[in-house]
Amino acid sequence: MTEATGLKLLEEHYAHGGRVRFYEHQSSVLGLPARFGVFLPPAACQGSRVPVVYALAGLTCTHETFLIKSCALAEAARLGIALVTPDTSPRGAGVEGEATDWDLGTGAGFYLDATQQPWAQHYRMGSYIAQELPLLVEEALPLDGAKRGIMGHSMGGHGALVHGLQAPLFWKSVSAFAPVVHPSVVPWGKKALSTYLGQDHAAWREHDAVCLLEDGHRHSAPILVDTGSADQFLRRELQPWLLVEAAEKTGQSLICREQEGYDHSYWFVQSFVTDHLRHHASVFGVA
Amino acid sequence: MTEATGLKLLEEHYAHGGRVRFYEHQSSVLGLPARFGVFLPPAACQGSRVPVVYALAGLTCTHETFLIKSCALAEAARLGIALVTPDTSPRGAGVEGEATDWDLGTGAGFYLDATQQPWAQHYRMGSYIAQELPLLVEEALPLDGAKRGIMGHSMGGHGALVHGLQAPLFWKSVSAFAPVVHPSVVPWGKKALSTYLGQDHAAWREHDAVCLLEDGHRHSAPILVDTGSADQFLRRELQPWLLVEAAEKTGQSLICREQEGYDHSYWFVQSFVTDHLRHHASVFGVA
Repeated sequence: MTEATGLKLLEEHYAHGGRVRFYEHQSSVLGLPARFGVFLPPAACQGSRVPVVYALAGLTCTHETFLIKSCALAEAARLGIALVTPDTSPRGAGVEGEATDWDLGTGAGFYLDATQQPWAQHYRMGSYIAQELPLLVEEALPLDGAKRGIMGHSMGGHGALVHGLQAPLFWKSVSAFAPVVHPSVVPWGKKALSTYLGQDHAAWREHDAVCLLEDGHRHSAPILVDTGSADQFLRRELQPWLLVEAAEKTGQSLICREQEGYDHSYWFVQSFVTDHLRHHASVFGVA
Repeated sequence: MTEATGLKLLEEHYAHGGRVRFYEHQSSVLGLPARFGVFLPPAACQGSRVPVVYALAGLTCTHETFLIKSCALAEAARLGIALVTPDTSPRGAGVEGEATDWDLGTGAGFYLDATQQPWAQHYRMGSYIAQELPLLVEEALPLDGAKRGIMGHSMGGHGALVHGLQAPLFWKSVSAFAPVVHPSVVPWGKKALSTYLGQDHAAWREHDAVCLLEDGHRHSAPILVDTGSADQFLRRELQPWLLVEAAEKTGQSLICREQEGYDHSYWFVQSFVTDHLRHHASVFGVA
């Protein structure tokens, strides 16, 4: 069914007293059909307008991954928090080479608007996350935009930090699992930023959490970050200590934890997702 | 690495203070390499011998499905219960047509020993679940065979009920999500039982929970069964009321719940898996 809002409901499942839904819509920002997932807690199904956390997934994932693998629903149901899970890139853009590398193109949109050809027409996940999706979903569903948080994993952790710091009044709470904190200086980030934004490194700074802090951006709420000590990408891609240094220098409140023995997988994410949801609930004042 | 027990550790991940592991071994019963998953709760990693629940997945699933999609690990960690997740069939048996149908052959072993050709050589998941796997894994890992339970979903719910009723001293506790309770009379069951066991319906009765109750099998612990009222297979394949009738007639203690609005998916399983684990813990006397 397609609702008046332009949302087509693909699937609906009861879960933890609430509902898991997958939707498709024609994205005007992306110029393509796009899919996303939603978890509505029991309170939302009973008519209340509820807080909402947007959860951004990592490289190679889809709009389904976080809902299936993070095991976040039980606690979200308990806290009365909705989850919205966008895709990780446009799908079917038809850009030559977009499916060649797992860390660029399809499944690897990096939650930014590309300025370089041939990417600029469709690779606009930045505006999609910052504007189109929240407006659409919060008009269609009983979500409280005054209690809107953002979290993410890996590339999605990068997205959560960057969007949270770019628009701290819009995103009231921010957390990340194993985020790419300083993409300007690591392989995944340099590849993506140079491809999508070109060689002008000044343009990269708006899409780099460490640079955003250095350039004066702040979030009024403490930011929660967890990374595993056995994460296979820790030294090459993540380097959370760079975020700690930048936060200390700039006065950003940051809770950055190293979880002994944990790796980069969703086994790690699901082990700490309850802490993250409670962090968001606490910032919203609903815990 | 291959341990002295013949177990090859394929993957290990920290999760909820414990460990998720995936193993491969050469199964003598199946005559093929076989894989299974394990969750060891924190207590097991600290040296305690812990209760264990074997979780049998449904049609098309693998040894990974239940661990990834059931969201059982947080509660299993809390209760100090290990999980063991076998595969749903032999893999690579090379039986002609085994990959043709999603409800027969690969991914559809029905947790029984086939007696008919060409299946009888490798399709022996019955002995694998009842004997080889528990002996192997409980020798290799700190699991307490005196507190051993079995649960399953759909075809795996059938497996849990049948194995639990066949060997109630071996399996101390039994539960099932959306099980096939009377395979002798429903399409999935009739297809599998006739293919694996032939046309002698007397042979089917040992692999049918309703028939096992009618034939005098009992479990001393209450059996917990949940099925969703919106399960798309409810009337055609599951018919839990047939188990309720058989239990009432025969005096088997059964807690059979219909969960309003839930379907057949793992969104349903994950919504009630905590209840099931607590049921097993209660029977073990560790809740």
